[in-house]
Parts: sequence; C-alpha cells; structure tokens
Amino acid sequence: MSLRPTLDFLLYEWLDAAGLNARERFAEHSRETFDAVLDTCERIARERFAPFNRLVDTEEPRFDGEKVILPAATKDAWDAYAASGMLSAAQDYAIGGMQLPYTLEAAAGAFFATASISIGGGLLTVGNANLLMAHGSEAQRRVFAHNEFSGRFSGTMALSEPQAGSSLSDIATRATPDGADYESDPLGPRYRLRGNKMWISAGEHELTENIVHLVLAKIPGLDGRLVPGTRGISLFIVPKKLVDDEGRLTGERNDVALAGLNHKLGWRGTTNTLLNFGEGRYPVRGAAGAIGYRVGQPGEGLRCMFHMMNEARIGIGMAATALGLAGYYASLDYARNRPQGRPVGPQGKDAAQPQVRIIEHADVKRMLLAQKAYSEGALALMLYCARLVDEQHTGAPEAADEARLLLEVLTPIAKSWPSEFCLEANSLAIQVHGGYGYTRDFPVEQYWRDNRLNMIHEGTHGIQAADLLGRKVRMEGGRGLMLLAGRMNATIERALQRPALAEHANALAQALQQLGATTKAAWATENPAEALANAVPYMQAFGHVVLAWTWLDVLLAVGDDAQDAAAVGRRGAARYFFHYELPRIGAWLQVVARRDMSCAQFPEAAF
Amino acid sequence: MSLRPTLDFLLYEWLDAAGLNARERFAEHSRETFDAVLDTCERIARERFAPFNRLVDTEEPRFDGEKVILPAATKDAWDAYAASGMLSAAQDYAIGGMQLPYTLEAAAGAFFATASISIGGGLLTVGNANLLMAHGSEAQRRVFAHNEFSGRFSGTMALSEPQAGSSLSDIATRATPDGADYESDPLGPRYRLRGNKMWISAGEHELTENIVHLVLAKIPGLDGRLVPGTRGISLFIVPKKLVDDEGRLTGERNDVALAGLNHKLGWRGTTNTLLNFGEGRYPVRGAAGAIGYRVGQPGEGLRCMFHMMNEARIGIGMAATALGLAGYYASLDYARNRPQGRPVGPQGKDAAQPQVRIIEHADVKRMLLAQKAYSEGALALMLYCARLVDEQHTGAPEAADEARLLLEVLTPIAKSWPSEFCLEANSLAIQVHGGYGYTRDFPVEQYWRDNRLNMIHEGTHGIQAADLLGRKVRMEGGRGLMLLAGRMNATIERALQRPALAEHANALAQALQQLGATTKAAWATENPAEALANAVPYMQAFGHVVLAWTWLDVLLAVGDDAQDAAAVGRRGAARYFFHYELPRIGAWLQVVARRDMSCAQFPEAAF
Repeated sequence: MSLRPTLDFLLYEWLDAAGLNARERFAEHSRETFDAVLDTCERIARERFAPFNRLVDTEEPRFDGEKVILPAATKDAWDAYAASGMLSAAQDYAIGGMQLPYTLEAAAGAFFATASISIGGGLLTVGNANLLMAHGSEAQRRVFAHNEFSGRFSGTMALSEPQAGSSLSDIATRATPDGADYESDPLGPRYRLRGNKMWISAGEHELTENIVHLVLAKIPGLDGRLVPGTRGISLFIVPKKLVDDEGRLTGERNDVALAGLNHKLGWRGTTNTLLNFGEGRYPVRGAAGAIGYRVGQPGEGLRCMFHMMNEARIGIGMAATALGLAGYYASLDYARNRPQGRPVGPQGKDAAQPQVRIIEHADVKRMLLAQKAYSEGALALMLYCARLVDEQHTGAPEAADEARLLLEVLTPIAKSWPSEFCLEANSLAIQVHGGYGYTRDFPVEQYWRDNRLNMIHEGTHGIQAADLLGRKVRMEGGRGLMLLAGRMNATIERALQRPALAEHANALAQALQQLGATTKAAWATENPAEALANAVPYMQAFGHVVLAWTWLDVLLAVGDDAQDAAAVGRRGAARYFFHYELPRIGAWLQVVARRDMSCAQFPEAAF
Repeated sequence: MSLRPTLDFLLYEWLDAAGLNARERFAEHSRETFDAVLDTCERIARERFAPFNRLVDTEEPRFDGEKVILPAATKDAWDAYAASGMLSAAQDYAIGGMQLPYTLEAAAGAFFATASISIGGGLLTVGNANLLMAHGSEAQRRVFAHNEFSGRFSGTMALSEPQAGSSLSDIATRATPDGADYESDPLGPRYRLRGNKMWISAGEHELTENIVHLVLAKIPGLDGRLVPGTRGISLFIVPKKLVDDEGRLTGERNDVALAGLNHKLGWRGTTNTLLNFGEGRYPVRGAAGAIGYRVGQPGEGLRCMFHMMNEARIGIGMAATALGLAGYYASLDYARNRPQGRPVGPQGKDAAQPQVRIIEHADVKRMLLAQKAYSEGALALMLYCARLVDEQHTGAPEAADEARLLLEVLTPIAKSWPSEFCLEANSLAIQVHGGYGYTRDFPVEQYWRDNRLNMIHEGTHGIQAADLLGRKVRMEGGRGLMLLAGRMNATIERALQRPALAEHANALAQALQQLGATTKAAWATENPAEALANAVPYMQAFGHVVLAWTWLDVLLAVGDDAQDAAAVGRRGAARYFFHYELPRIGAWLQVVARRDMSCAQFPEAAF
C-alpha cells in the first residue's frame, strides 16, 4: 500500500532498470545509487511535500500589488527539491549533474507527484533547461540552463495566448530586432517582444532569484506582417530580470508584467498567470518591449519546443498517474478502517452480525481494484515510456531509432490515458469514502480536482487524439504502429507459452487485430474529415489496448507460481483489466470503423 | 438553447401532460395554468437563483458561535420560492395548495435546479411535509406540514449517523418515552431523543422561523437494548424550537445543537451539518434529551421514510439532470463564440484561413452532442417517472398499480443514471472550455463539483445497484421487470412501423433481450453473493437500455418529416445515443452474465 514496492518491482523486475548501468553514460550507477535517489526523493516528498498539499490548495497564490504571495511551505519544498539535485539529475557530471537515467528520474518524480502535485514546479524548470541544453548557445546554456539546474533560477514555457490556446499558429506576440547590433549580444540575438501570454504556470513568484521565460513569438517580415501558421514562430529567452553574460542580475527588471492570476479548480499550489510582455509597465534600457534572446534559428521555435514535448507529455501522464495512485492509497486506507454494513452471503445479510469494514463488500473491492488497475497500469506505461527515452538517448542506433518511433506513437496515449482514467480512479476514490469523500476533511476530492487539469494542458484530449490518428499511426508509412504491434505480438507470444496467461494473450491478440482493422477502415476513404471524426473514441480504445498489453507484459515478470500478496495483486489487477476494461473497446471502435459522421455532421442550429 | 422549449415539448407533445386535467383532481387545470406556473418559476429562477449561484459557492455557510450565516441572497431565494406557492404546489386547494400534478412540479423544479442547485432547500422541506401528510396525525399535519408548505418552517431528513450512513440498521439514536403522560401530548407520543445525526442538509440556519427535523431513532426495549436491524427504527418530529398545538413558538429552544458544519467539494449553498440531539446544550423542560413526537407506529420509521423515497430519489436524479443541462447550455454558448483553430477538410487544415468557432470542430460537436443526449435524455426520463407518480396517485386502480411497480424498478435508474452520466456531461462541458473551463471565471467547474454529490446522497450508487438487481427486478415474481419490458416492446413495435426508426428499434430489442438474459444469468445460482458481485455494471447497462428506450419513445413524438431545428436535434441526439452509447452495454453485461468474481474474491492483502 505504498508506492515504493510497486516502483521497485516495475523498475528492477520488469524493466531491468539496473541493466542500464551497462551503458557508458550510466556506468557509475548501480542499483545502490538508484535506490539512494529513490530513498532521498521518497523522504523529501514525505517531509516537505505531503504535509502541505491541502495548505497550498486553501492558500491560493495571491498578488499583493507587488509580489505574488505563496505559503512559506512552497519555498521550503522548492529549496529541498533543488538541494536534492533532482533538477539536474539527468545532466552530465561535468556540469554538476548525476547522469541519472530518465527512467529513474521519472520514477523518483512519482514520489513528489503523489505527495503534492501542485506544490512543486520542478517539471517546467527542468523541461525549460533541457530545451536550452538541446537548442541554446553555449552562453545560453551556461547562463540560463545551468542556473535552472542549480535551482537559482526557475523556468516557464510561454506558448499560449488568450486567443491562441490549442491553435498555436495564431499567436500574435511580436519580436523585433533590438537595435542595429541586435545580433552581437553575447546572450544571443536580442529582440524586443510585445504580446500577452496566457496559462503560464509559475509565471510570477519569489521562489527563485529569477524566472527564465521561454516564449514563442513571431518575427514580422519586412512588410511588418506576421507569417501565418506555425512556420513563422521563433523561440526566445525572456528573463524576468536581466542578467549579464555571467548570469549575474544586472539590477534591471525586464518588461514582463503580471496581468492576472488564474483562479483554478485545482492544482492551486502552482501559480498560473497571464503575463504581458512589453506593455511598458517596467520600461527597460530606453526602448519599448521586453528584451528577449532568440534560441535557434528564426521560424524554428515550434520545432525546438516540440523537441521536449514527449518528455513534457510523459510528465503530464505521470502527474495524472500519481494522483490516481494517491487516491487509490487514500481510499484503500479508508476502506480498511471504515466499518459499515454487512457482507452479502448466500442467504443475504444478517443484521444481528456486527458491521464489517467496507473493504469486505464486493462493490468496494471493485472500486479499489479498478483504481489499482488504472493507476498501477498507468505507472507501468509511464516507466516503459521513460525507458524508451533512455533507449532513444543511449541505445544502439537501430534500437534508439525504434525507441524514438515508438515514443511518437505512445506519447499521445501516455499523456491522455492516465488523464482520463486516473481521473476516473479519483472519482471512485471519492465514492469509496461515501459522504466523507465529498468533504474537504479527506484528501480525495482535491486529487479529483487537481487531476481534472491533465486532460486540458499540454495539448487537450482532442489534440492528442488528432495527433495519434491523424499523424502518429501513419507517419513513416505506418512504421510506428507496426513497431508497436510487433512489441505487442512479442508479449503475446511469450504469454502464450504460459497456460495461465493464454486467455489474456488471446484477448489481446484479438483486440490488436481489431485496432489494426479499425485504423485501416478509418482511413479507407483517405479523407481526414471522415477519419478524424471519431479520433477521441479511437484514442480511448487504443489506450485500453496499450494498457492491456502493459498489464500482460507486467505479468510476464510475475511467476505463475508466485503466491505472495504483490503477485496475487498484480494478477488480479490484470485480470480485472482484461475482464472489465478491455471489452469496452468494441463500443469505441465501431464508430471509428464505420466513419460515423453523427457528430461531425450534426447541424449547429440543432443543438 | 434554453430549457423551456425542451420542457414544453416533453410535457405536451410527448407526455400529454395537458391531458391530466381530464382527471378530477386536476380538473381546474389547463395548459394555461400549467404554463403560468412554468413562467413564474422560470422568472424566479432567473432573477433570484441564477445570479447568486457563484456567490453561494464562494460564501460558504459559517457558524459564528450562535448562528449559521448565509448570504442574504439565500434568504431572498427562499422567500421568493415560498411566495411562489411551489412548496405546496401539489397540495389540496383546501389547505392552500394548487393541486398541481407532480409532473408539472418536477418540470418547474428544473428551472431552479439549473439556475442554482444549492441555493434552494425546498426539496427537503416538501419531502418532509409530504411524509407528514401521509403518516402524521391531524395535529402533526396541521402544526408542522402546513407551516412547511407556507414556508414559515423548513424541514430536514435526519437519517444518517457518523457510524451509520448506508447502513441505517446501525443507527444508535435512542428515543425514550418522556414521562408517564408521554402518549397524551396533542402533537403525538412524546419522547426524549439522544444521539448524533450526520449529513443533515439545511440542519441549521435562520432562513425560517423554525426547523422541523424528521429523525430516525430506536426505542429501547424493556431491557434497555436497541433492536438490531431496521425493524427497530421509529420516526420522530423534533422541532428546533418547541411549538404549541397551534404551531406558535413557545419560546423554548429544543435540545438540538449544531456540532459542526461539513465543508464540501460543492453544493455549498446548502448548509450540511452534524447535529447533536439531547446532548444538554439547550436543556429543555427539566429533563434530558431533545423532545420529539413519534410519527406513525413504533418500528415503522423506515417504512414511513421510504414512502417518500421514490420522489426524493427522482429529485436527486432531476438535480443531476439539471446540472447536466446547465453545463450543456454554458458550453454550447462558449463553443458558439470562441474562435480557435480551423476545420479538418478533405485536404487537412489551411493556416491561411481565419479561425473558426470551435463548434465547427467535429470533436467539440461530439462533446456537445454527448451532453445533449445525456442530459435531455435524463430530463425525459425524470418527467416520465414524475408522470408515473401522478398515475400512481390519480390513475385507475390497475394503471395506478402498474405505475407503482414501474416506479419501483425505474427509481434506482432515475437516481443513479443522471448522477453518473450528467456528471460526465459536466466534465465534457469543462473540456469544451479548454483552460478556461478549469478556471472559476466560468460556471462549468462548479456544476461538475456540485454534481459529484449525486452519486453519494440518498443512497449511493452501490446501494441503488443492489436495490435494482437484488430486489426490484425480482419483486412480485419479476412482474416489475416484465412490465417495463412490455412498455419497451410497445415502443419498439410502434417504432418498427416507421422505417426511419427501425434501426434504433431493432437495436433496442436486441439490448432488451440481452438485459433479460443477463438478469436470469446473474441469478442462475440463486446466490446473492454471486448475483450481486457486479450489481453496478448491471445498473449501468440497465440505465443505458432505459435511456435508449426513452430516446426512441421521444422520437415517436417527433414527425419523421419534421425538419425544424428541434426535431433534427432530437433525432441527432437519439442517433448519438444509439450509435455511441448503447453499444457500451456489452462490456458491462458480460461480467454480470458470467457472475465474474474477479472483484468479489480479490483478497484484501493483495491490494
């Protein structure tokens, strides 16, 4: 009933994470060093995150006119996290990193995310700095990224605008060269930015010395117009406070102004902002606009940003998963201790008997088992994807390329599936608590509210689905989908060797066949409007097939003779998934297969 | 895009509500008087409820040590509601009522519930007073019920206790005779009550002169012990302030003390309390215990309470439905006005084109159509059930008895189905809004939070499912289920006459056959532990079949040639339900049919 044993099993017995230290980059690591990282993170999460999860929900960030005020616990949590070294866990030893595999980084992150998803803002800072490590100049890496890894600065991703959320091609923030010498700034080509950025998490706070905004903006052409579409988008570093080329604050405030705090349903520990760039609130260096340094080439902004998208989306999936796990643990604890009612026996109920704990009721078991199957299954998938990231970065060329392509196909699932089904898990966690679950005296209602964000940010459910069915399963001639099917078939074949797993293996084989046929049928007319009319049901079914495969593959690491509680639990959760969940794909896929236009062609006036 | 046209269609064109005035009780009514009631309620809801829905969420009830403080708007809403006469709408003219059919009362209630579900507490007061009209003495009716109908007093239902929520047989509140003359009190046999009651909505406030608590308690036997089980439960009127036999306040406070306010996830406009009865905070008339007057015979408390359960549960279903509708209207409005992205054409998207409103995207249409199908379908079912209540009360004997039995079977669905699927609708309403839906600047997040209560109160989802599969489909030799199947078959036969409806009719016929076979299979071993192991999936499938039938029956009232927007909308929503929703029953029913014990037999240690 705690996260650690599940992580240990998945990492070491299923994914052979310890085997990663055969690779040069991880040669100085071992199961012992991995365990030390997990120990540290587990402890910090327990001491500095979990006790304050409700506090950061009730004491929402507020702006006093000058500063954004956060509970002191938020600063403590940030400092402890930074001090742990986790911000630079994946980086080279040479710059103070641990050269930790991403698989371990992701696993360790689960401790923080289950303890308090919104108190920590580390994810964005690491993503920001990683992007600069990949696409920034030497000076940009040294001045900005390195200071983010140390925790001295924090980072944001400023993509959306009030009028451009899902549709990034419509951003209107403008970047114009800052003076004739704009190209000779040691921090990179210098521009002046003007525009508004919406939904910027951790966009304003006092947790760190400085905030490094990574901002998408368009450089107008000679005619002063912005290029339509995403090709016109470039990427800029816009620090809240200006720095010199050694990263020291110059004492100048950049023209980045808080326009408003967003007041959210959940995830309240993290400030979410509307920022005005270059509106003139903080005039800087005698000209208009916020100063920004271009990263990479003009017009390559989105490509740079998407470089990090897989990890960002796995991060969202992990957040959703962690909330699912947190709700599962909380409701399991409640169910083990709450007496209520009597079991249904062959003769019904006997009121003269004492009450039993609710975990003895079949329906409560069903709700707990569903949560276990959803959230532990999702955790396995997240770690599998993290392992693919390591493969992509450190594997032999062919394996690395396969990992890259598998990630392309799996990322929409890794992001969307936990967002939907671990949210459902949280609803079940409330239900297990009965009326108490509806009160703020128990943590589950907050998990449910926090988790509702994950289907929205970093690309909505609809965006993920269009990406999956419109692009990912067709890219490179469908090679990604074939590769994934190959992995699933390998699992099926191994499972067929074991009589206890044959039923599941056959069910998965049939589901996979159905998924493949449906993918073909969706595109039979080669008309995107028809193929994508039911992209979300397709993604739901695809996700369920992936999760069924994940559970079957996990069972391959559980001995058929193993009778310890954990083994019985995994077998039971997989069985639940195959019996109760996998059959749901039929209803989802049939509308896709016949390219049902009931929704797409429904006339607006008829709503 | 407003509730009224949908209500008008369902009431008059589908259910022939106007035909009710052929009955003696409703003879003075007509479509005109019904419309006048709907007009009034629509106006009060718009003026006194809707504008304050967010306010009552943010200004939660608080206790200042003496009084529970609510926003002034709550008192205004109560007064306007009471002044409308709706509290006594169904009562005889002789006591100031309107003799309005319940069908109309329920329809009118939808205006208030969509406007602000939690500002109004009328539902409980009416239920309380109705119970007294059915089971109270003449004095109890006159002193308590009549003053509730006028809005001078309000009412509660005090069933649950901290240790006894779903399991009412375990209540421990004790009622002992109050003195030797206890049986001669004009207000009824007088007892002294001691115990704690949990989850009491509107349990303490200053909205009315007095609060009439209806309290379940056990009268100890001669040995001082409480009878185990529900047979030992009796029902008592426990007024917050004592009254004389004319209903005038005597100036004495009864010993009912607020022990705490529950702080909830939603539904915050309604105070929810833990009450202590007879703890000695307000000693009264020189003896210990809160004074209560027994209603009905000793041991008959639960029977009296359940008399009103059908209407209470339809009320919950209507609340869930109304919240579903409110979210649908809000997201429809948003989708019609929010520009974002471009449609997918046969050649994909064209970034040079201007953005379109999101209602033009297929996936947004899917989310809107799902909401429409869920919430308008649920509304139809609620009104159908309300019409059965009228039939039960005013129909010819055989029809009345059929209506009673149909209600027995349908009530668990009427309560549970909207609670689950209109909550899902609210989640889709958030999703349509994207990031804005996650903020408290838009109403949809509150609808979602408010709606989460409905799967919990008035009998949880699990309790409804056990009631449905364990009792309702088997009672009277399965006659209720057969009756319902008969109604469905009648709809199917009529639909088969119309080529445009034949596909749906056949799908429903097949689903009904599957449901019947599964019901038999569940009970094939006559072992409740096996039959009920998957009661919730059974109820979900049952509900979907009922809703498919409802939609098909609604379409019978829509001409095949009608091409007005409303007709096209109903046809499209029904089509959505048959294509996307009804096929889901397969996955739910197969575990029921094979009496899958995966959950029930999962060992506790393995979680």
